[in-house]
Amino acid sequence: MTVTTVTNIENQAIEAKSAVKKMAMLTTKEKNEALYQLADSLETHYKQILEANNRDLDSGVEKGFDPALMDRLTLTKDRVVEFANGLREVATLTDPTGHTISDWTLDNGLHVKKVTVPLGVIGMIYEARPNVTVDATGLALKSGNSIVLKGGSNAIHSNRAIVGVIHQALEQTAVPREAVQFIDSTDREATKALFTMNDYIDVLIPRGGGSLIQAVVQNATVPVLETGVGNCHLYIDQSADVQKALSIFINAKTDRPAVCNAAETILVHREWLRQHKEELISALQSHTINVHGDPDVVKIIPGSSLAGESEWENEFLSLDIAMKIVSSTEEAISHIDQYGTKHSEAIITEDAEQANVFFTLVDAAALYHNASTRFTDGGALGFGAEIGISTQKLHARGPMGLPALTTIKFLMSGNGQIR
Amino acid sequence: MTVTTVTNIENQAIEAKSAVKKMAMLTTKEKNEALYQLADSLETHYKQILEANNRDLDSGVEKGFDPALMDRLTLTKDRVVEFANGLREVATLTDPTGHTISDWTLDNGLHVKKVTVPLGVIGMIYEARPNVTVDATGLALKSGNSIVLKGGSNAIHSNRAIVGVIHQALEQTAVPREAVQFIDSTDREATKALFTMNDYIDVLIPRGGGSLIQAVVQNATVPVLETGVGNCHLYIDQSADVQKALSIFINAKTDRPAVCNAAETILVHREWLRQHKEELISALQSHTINVHGDPDVVKIIPGSSLAGESEWENEFLSLDIAMKIVSSTEEAISHIDQYGTKHSEAIITEDAEQANVFFTLVDAAALYHNASTRFTDGGALGFGAEIGISTQKLHARGPMGLPALTTIKFLMSGNGQIR
Repeated sequence: MTVTTVTNIENQAIEAKSAVKKMAMLTTKEKNEALYQLADSLETHYKQILEANNRDLDSGVEKGFDPALMDRLTLTKDRVVEFANGLREVATLTDPTGHTISDWTLDNGLHVKKVTVPLGVIGMIYEARPNVTVDATGLALKSGNSIVLKGGSNAIHSNRAIVGVIHQALEQTAVPREAVQFIDSTDREATKALFTMNDYIDVLIPRGGGSLIQAVVQNATVPVLETGVGNCHLYIDQSADVQKALSIFINAKTDRPAVCNAAETILVHREWLRQHKEELISALQSHTINVHGDPDVVKIIPGSSLAGESEWENEFLSLDIAMKIVSSTEEAISHIDQYGTKHSEAIITEDAEQANVFFTLVDAAALYHNASTRFTDGGALGFGAEIGISTQKLHARGPMGLPALTTIKFLMSGNGQIR
Repeated sequence: MTVTTVTNIENQAIEAKSAVKKMAMLTTKEKNEALYQLADSLETHYKQILEANNRDLDSGVEKGFDPALMDRLTLTKDRVVEFANGLREVATLTDPTGHTISDWTLDNGLHVKKVTVPLGVIGMIYEARPNVTVDATGLALKSGNSIVLKGGSNAIHSNRAIVGVIHQALEQTAVPREAVQFIDSTDREATKALFTMNDYIDVLIPRGGGSLIQAVVQNATVPVLETGVGNCHLYIDQSADVQKALSIFINAKTDRPAVCNAAETILVHREWLRQHKEELISALQSHTINVHGDPDVVKIIPGSSLAGESEWENEFLSLDIAMKIVSSTEEAISHIDQYGTKHSEAIITEDAEQANVFFTLVDAAALYHNASTRFTDGGALGFGAEIGISTQKLHARGPMGLPALTTIKFLMSGNGQIR
């Protein structure tokens, strides 16, 4: 990439940063009006968005994209209306900034107030999912942040068209158009340029597959909100109720296998399996689930193949499951410690003590007792729109709604206090 | 550094991680008893700590350390008693883990509980300040975390002796000694080995000068809690009360010039300076403050010298101050945007509107109106002991007490819920 291009990107980040100060002067009403305006404009201009999208789809066909990728890339009039309605929903959510979390007065009369404020400039790095362009922009603006968008190159025409509509719409609102910056480049070096812009970008949020996320985590000096990879386990304990166990397993594995909160490994207590082998086999077969197991599993489950490290370590995101037989909750936890991604982990048991041990010792954002891992989702938990699911421990963990896009300031008001 | 040494450090991190699970089973009472035991043991064994400290001090004299460095390195019986009392104070603080922040039940009956839990393994990287060995250990154990200590090589004997006493004391408590790991090496490569141990270390906290902190921020893939560099500004607005302005300025600059919340630059409104030049010059002279100013300042303030980029950018940590004349609050904010480190920034004004603009537009952890920046301190604000002052925006901002060493877990209890 040319030096000029890096300079351009830096200039965009600088514009985004200076827009943060203008955003700080806006009222919640002004921000909401901008979101409604964006929603209306996207609907009005849906044709030009779909035309641009067609160019990306044509390239996708040429490049031989798989159906899942094509599906995520495809926009329709209905999907554009969904985007617009998503923005309108964000407008109805509580403004996460300007809240006084606590305030107190020191003995010397100094008044201390801890308030929520926007993070500043959010760098969004994502794959070919044009919906992220709209969702992330809506959440950023609502929370008073500027956003720098770097989407996947396979969606460049769609993203350019969407941002074009957004910029035009913002001209009619109090929100400065500089608050939304679009890195109009398919060059990977453009993404890397964002990694170290600590002076202008406050946080990077990668959305996409494991390799994208790791590239950002490993190389960025800007702080990162790590999202998404879910190598989720379901542990069926000795005392698990067979109906609960099977219905939760089938739901966690098959409802939407490609999402991050789907189950990828089933850990089954040896004794439970001895008693319920037939029901499990029948459930696996009737849902055409492909089992990759340890040597004992291979002997027991018809059609299963031997699992290697790769099967224990990675998400299948398909109707495949890794399966291991264990002899205790401790053994299950030890496997999760080794292979889990700290996303969502479940235990199925009628024994409260085992559930307690699991809740205490497993290190993950969301732990489940007798429920499906599929509930790790901002919408399902009632948070409204989500910017991603954090699998890190700092700042935000689990589904991240608007509050994850804020930080705090201490405001101290005095009349001459010194120490 | 040899591969063996890296393996040793990795093994220590693994031990620390496995101790986290043992810590999770402890009660607050057991953790507090351990802190009291540590306090008593440090007092009992103060002589062996002081003997070890003498070896570090001898090396320090040989290496020609400056008085400030020697002072931070020096232990006395009184200082050991202070350490012990610090641990006893931490024992009296509220346990930051196990709190239910919120809980609710979904329409389908799934019960959701958001609880505070320890971060896990804390990697503490610090300079030759043996007090950090004790303080950080106390805060880590109280919050249920393990800690890996990598102190400055110039305090290696003191730290080794302190950790020896800590390990012996922990044998008599419910806290596993593996929860406190000491990297017994003066090799810088040992520090670097910690930077990328993402599998075992949950957070790195650097404590010390700017170059140490930047080395960690720039090179670590483990998440970092950035602490401490404070290039703090004091802006004296046109309407500032002269008594408040001068007394706050003198306090912020001279009370303890080497600490991070001391003022390093004074921005003075042209009109205020015209009216109060004589009082300011008199205050500067009576406190032997050395001024580095812009060209106009050099003409006005006797004995001042011209400031360069380095003076605007860096902490003096001495009785030196950078001084710039400005014509508005906006100009002051613009200077702070360029050179501030997002730590503590103050405005002195009788004009509430100017204070409001300053509070809204300056991006820093702590903002002051008519008070000294010296209050940015966990003790002064009533937080109890502090692990450092965060100058980052994610996770924790400003003085960090025990809650900064925790994260959250979502615990979901159901009876078969699926999506």
